Amino acid sequence: MDASAERRVTISAIAHEAGVSVPTVSRVVNGRSDVAPETRQRVEELLRRHGYQRRTSRTRSTARLIDLVFNDLDSPWAVEIIRGVEDAAHAAGVGTVVSAIHRSTEPARQWLQNLRARASDGVILVNSTLDPRIQDELRRLNVPMVVVDPAGGPTLDAPTIGATNWAGGLSAVEHLLELGHQRIGFITGPRNRLCSRARLDGYRAALESAHLELAGDLTWEGDFYHESGYDGAAALLARPERPTAIAASSDQMAVGAYEAVRVQGLRVPDDVSIVGFDDLPEVRWASPPLTTVRQPLTEMGAVAARTVLRLAAGEHVETPRLELATTLITRESTAPPKS
Amino acid sequence: MDASAERRVTISAIAHEAGVSVPTVSRVVNGRSDVAPETRQRVEELLRRHGYQRRTSRTRSTARLIDLVFNDLDSPWAVEIIRGVEDAAHAAGVGTVVSAIHRSTEPARQWLQNLRARASDGVILVNSTLDPRIQDELRRLNVPMVVVDPAGGPTLDAPTIGATNWAGGLSAVEHLLELGHQRIGFITGPRNRLCSRARLDGYRAALESAHLELAGDLTWEGDFYHESGYDGAAALLARPERPTAIAASSDQMAVGAYEAVRVQGLRVPDDVSIVGFDDLPEVRWASPPLTTVRQPLTEMGAVAARTVLRLAAGEHVETPRLELATTLITRESTAPPKS
Repeated sequence: MDASAERRVTISAIAHEAGVSVPTVSRVVNGRSDVAPETRQRVEELLRRHGYQRRTSRTRSTARLIDLVFNDLDSPWAVEIIRGVEDAAHAAGVGTVVSAIHRSTEPARQWLQNLRARASDGVILVNSTLDPRIQDELRRLNVPMVVVDPAGGPTLDAPTIGATNWAGGLSAVEHLLELGHQRIGFITGPRNRLCSRARLDGYRAALESAHLELAGDLTWEGDFYHESGYDGAAALLARPERPTAIAASSDQMAVGAYEAVRVQGLRVPDDVSIVGFDDLPEVRWASPPLTTVRQPLTEMGAVAARTVLRLAAGEHVETPRLELATTLITRESTAPPKS
Repeated sequence: MDASAERRVTISAIAHEAGVSVPTVSRVVNGRSDVAPETRQRVEELLRRHGYQRRTSRTRSTARLIDLVFNDLDSPWAVEIIRGVEDAAHAAGVGTVVSAIHRSTEPARQWLQNLRARASDGVILVNSTLDPRIQDELRRLNVPMVVVDPAGGPTLDAPTIGATNWAGGLSAVEHLLELGHQRIGFITGPRNRLCSRARLDGYRAALESAHLELAGDLTWEGDFYHESGYDGAAALLARPERPTAIAASSDQMAVGAYEAVRVQGLRVPDDVSIVGFDDLPEVRWASPPLTTVRQPLTEMGAVAARTVLRLAAGEHVETPRLELATTLITRESTAPPKS
């Protein structure tokens, strides 16, 4: 604690070094626009160099808050993350403000204004696809930040908490190979998402290890939602030599694939084995229960909350890119292929 | 706006009337313990009589917040409510603090302390089962409050937002009767929950209207979760004259019932029709897609947020017990009974 306190630099020290007034530095810290551009630049440079952290938690009398930001609150996936974040934040006496910014700039800008006004202690961005201008403004606020399930694209300079997506994709396909499947389809997530690409590469690596030809025609790009899993499985099952197994890059797509199998008069796993990715609570109750790659979403949320609170306390975080382990959960949707 | 402003009473007016200092009234308003009991009682009585509302949004410089409180964040159900609340709050420039109090007193007490410190503008309790002592403390804080899906039991004196549960139960069973079913099982939610009782009464009313005997042995008490739906359907299907249709008081129980049907080598809807309650997004993708009673969870959340913000603005709310309409959504899990 003492060491981190020593490392902290005050606004007045920055003001002194920059040769400006303390209120001017405050205006820069708070992201206000009434500062001359070259002054802003000089002050921001000094803030960065000294690793200045806003000491929000000491200067406000109200209870502490962290912000948890989703693109959309449209999936049971979100509640798993919320549970983990809320649990860890609550244990630290900190409230969790949940927001959805709907992938668009206006809600994001309003959220950012509110973030500043409520002096949030830190921000957890889930699978962020923030507009670059919003990213700039967020950086300028200098609030501690952690990204869960990084989306890829222009990086926010923040620690990330993800899952071992490559190893997860690998384990799903290795499981199917061990059962004796050779024609294995793969329904990917959106290819511009890091986690999708890692899972697809894991699929390819498993096939390569088994010396199976890379069946380029046996992949199909989905968007993580049910409908695209249905469409993907329908397309793959219509191929001349249809796959005997399909791995999907999300549980929702796996469940969509079930329906495509059913409407073609086929059965899971008798005719087609299916593996998902996530292990949402409800897939234990799919008919049949889904074999899937467990992503520790709740734990990812908890680790993100603890990390952002450590950053807020001025601590140094050792692992800027953390991946928590995925685990294959074998249930009843996979079986050896019919010979 | 002017009318509601006129109705407001200030702390200094209360202090004058009670013959105490302004800081003393503030201490009572803020729920602090350093006030003599009879003074507190006198001040609270006056606050109540004048309908005093804390003018939090004017007295703090930070952005406004409302608190959304669940017992547990353990169901896709929760994310539907969160989405509605966040959407409406965001539109009003207000942040949403999400908490889970795990049905126990310590987390609830800590939440309450934080609520006070962060000067929340209002509280939305979802299906609250708060300890009576916590209820007392909450009342003392005099924060605007709305209850979503009231649990029953000792009432908090607050507006409630629910769904037409009785009419929903009725419509599910009428649908099965119209298809020609006569032996209809019903898996209830916990009987101590208001919404469960209303749905069960709707079931009974539909049977009575059809002059069918009240088949007391064709109900089974579940807890809203998958497992109990499985157990309930297994028990009902084991009855000497098994039901040809089962209505469940939640979607999760309906999906559990699917699995009980499957393991007995039967099929939905060929051998047993099933109806759910909620219309969670994923049941569109059950195999087969679930016929269910839609509860407008997102809309309930949005109405709750708008209501609590109106209360926070000092407005009068006309409808202290609001029920939003349920709708039967017919999909593929229901069909006429085999003759």
